[in-house]
Amino acid sequence: MITIKQIAEEANVSVASVSRYFNNKAVLSLKKQKAIADVVDKHGYVPNSIGRSLRMARSGKILILLPTMENPMYLRIITAIENECYQYGYTALVCDTHRNPHKERHLLSMLENHYADGAILFSSTLNGKELESLAKRYPIVLCCEQRPDAAVASVSIDDYAAAYEAVEHLLNMGHTRIAIALGSEVYGSTVFRREGYMDALKSRNISITADYILVGDYGYNSGMKCVEKLAKIKPMPTAVLCISDAVAIGAIKKCRELDIKMAVAGFDNTSITRVYMPSVTSVAQPRSLMGTTAMQLLHAMIMNPKEKHVKKILPHQLVVRESTLIC
Amino acid sequence: MITIKQIAEEANVSVASVSRYFNNKAVLSLKKQKAIADVVDKHGYVPNSIGRSLRMARSGKILILLPTMENPMYLRIITAIENECYQYGYTALVCDTHRNPHKERHLLSMLENHYADGAILFSSTLNGKELESLAKRYPIVLCCEQRPDAAVASVSIDDYAAAYEAVEHLLNMGHTRIAIALGSEVYGSTVFRREGYMDALKSRNISITADYILVGDYGYNSGMKCVEKLAKIKPMPTAVLCISDAVAIGAIKKCRELDIKMAVAGFDNTSITRVYMPSVTSVAQPRSLMGTTAMQLLHAMIMNPKEKHVKKILPHQLVVRESTLIC
Repeated sequence: MITIKQIAEEANVSVASVSRYFNNKAVLSLKKQKAIADVVDKHGYVPNSIGRSLRMARSGKILILLPTMENPMYLRIITAIENECYQYGYTALVCDTHRNPHKERHLLSMLENHYADGAILFSSTLNGKELESLAKRYPIVLCCEQRPDAAVASVSIDDYAAAYEAVEHLLNMGHTRIAIALGSEVYGSTVFRREGYMDALKSRNISITADYILVGDYGYNSGMKCVEKLAKIKPMPTAVLCISDAVAIGAIKKCRELDIKMAVAGFDNTSITRVYMPSVTSVAQPRSLMGTTAMQLLHAMIMNPKEKHVKKILPHQLVVRESTLIC
Repeated sequence: MITIKQIAEEANVSVASVSRYFNNKAVLSLKKQKAIADVVDKHGYVPNSIGRSLRMARSGKILILLPTMENPMYLRIITAIENECYQYGYTALVCDTHRNPHKERHLLSMLENHYADGAILFSSTLNGKELESLAKRYPIVLCCEQRPDAAVASVSIDDYAAAYEAVEHLLNMGHTRIAIALGSEVYGSTVFRREGYMDALKSRNISITADYILVGDYGYNSGMKCVEKLAKIKPMPTAVLCISDAVAIGAIKKCRELDIKMAVAGFDNTSITRVYMPSVTSVAQPRSLMGTTAMQLLHAMIMNPKEKHVKKILPHQLVVRESTLIC
């Protein structure tokens, strides 16, 4: 296998630059980063994280904890985390908590045993106090959700603003009876999006109809059930904002089955939204940037345990497609 | 946290039964398994794998290596592996090889360091010889693909028979010009499915048209490109069998855009096939059973390194839906 010295020669940079590339590449010029990346990719070089971890008393492993493996929204983010890990020489270990706090704690015990150097948590099932206590002892970054109640680093969009904007779009399309299909209140994203939904309606002096606020999960079936319920309410809503693209697609499918016209918007802008017929309006989260940012925050905390707990808010974007235009 | 003794009391079984439950539950009656599972679930009990690994010189960790995190087909299988791991007291660590053999080898080096006890490989990028050599030293199970050229344990469907049956269905619907959209030849599934496709056509004395055999990847875009190519061929095929459901959906979408009628079938029977409009004919793989079986084989090999390399073939099922009925 090629050595760091050979990489430096072939990329025409110093050995120190190659070392920085793997430890803190942001300090290098983009030109140098690219020159080194080309040589690293060409030879499939993988930094020797075991040697590194012996020198640095670290394992070179990162935990990524998910509440489920079956949410397509997470996958692009994880790919971005993975790519970032590879650059720094970490190995990413993805684990499923099954939304079980016992299991989540058990997995996090790998941090105690120096089995892993830090963790990125997606939709943690732990409460703010427990997270804060963990974050005092170990490098931890929350991804996709922030916890205003706890001093924990996080990367997310502004879920309040994103839902507000999506509801404004539906209002601008002439809808006044607008429903929302949410997830469990355990998740911060649901709490913030509900607030954004309510405030957008209030801004146009539309009163809130409790029956229009539904709670389910993130899958197709939940969207189908949601429309079944809405179809029985009088007056029936003419539009619904859904917590995920899968819920939106389930809703559209059920509307077709029941021969109902309803504008439907989703969240996450997963790739199915473009190929579904009709194509689906959705709020895009910058998934690659979220993953890269989460890993950069985590790496900074591993390198410097005194690093502050930053709460990064990244930009979202409403992508309007057929599902809210044809109604 | 509750102890094994307390679990035994509450489930009204012996301590030995609880121990067997976590080490080899198949020897217990289903009634006992259920009684113990109920108590374990109620208290969220997690076996102390660190204590176990000290006693048994094992880490209590299992590697699951994927070529990409973005294939929905794998996710249900992994959930099943996870559930099985939880019963035996293992922690599953999912890692992404990015289809890079260098990275795959680097990840597998965790077996050398006793960082993990065994590995389940999805679509390995290593050749048969290398896999066989690894399998001599460590517990390894291939999932979703078999390698007839190597003595390695595996769990898969019969890809040849599955493709043969799907093509027979298209023939029975009156199609004679049938195309196929495959993945790279690196993957055994592509090689076997192409053979099944060709033999099904030959069985009806239909000659093979080289232009009807396309190679791409597993995503929506690949399906769209596939139909773009097929649309330019004269005579144009009237049906296409696709290597994945995402490719099938991309193909259907492009047919609609180009106003072409073509019967389309996919592979894997992922949940989108039911909610897409039209719903999509697909070959179902028994994903939960595949995951459970892979983990049971791996556990047996970890417990007994002399265990044989079993190649399990599990039943598939063609699920016929609108996408091959409406043309």
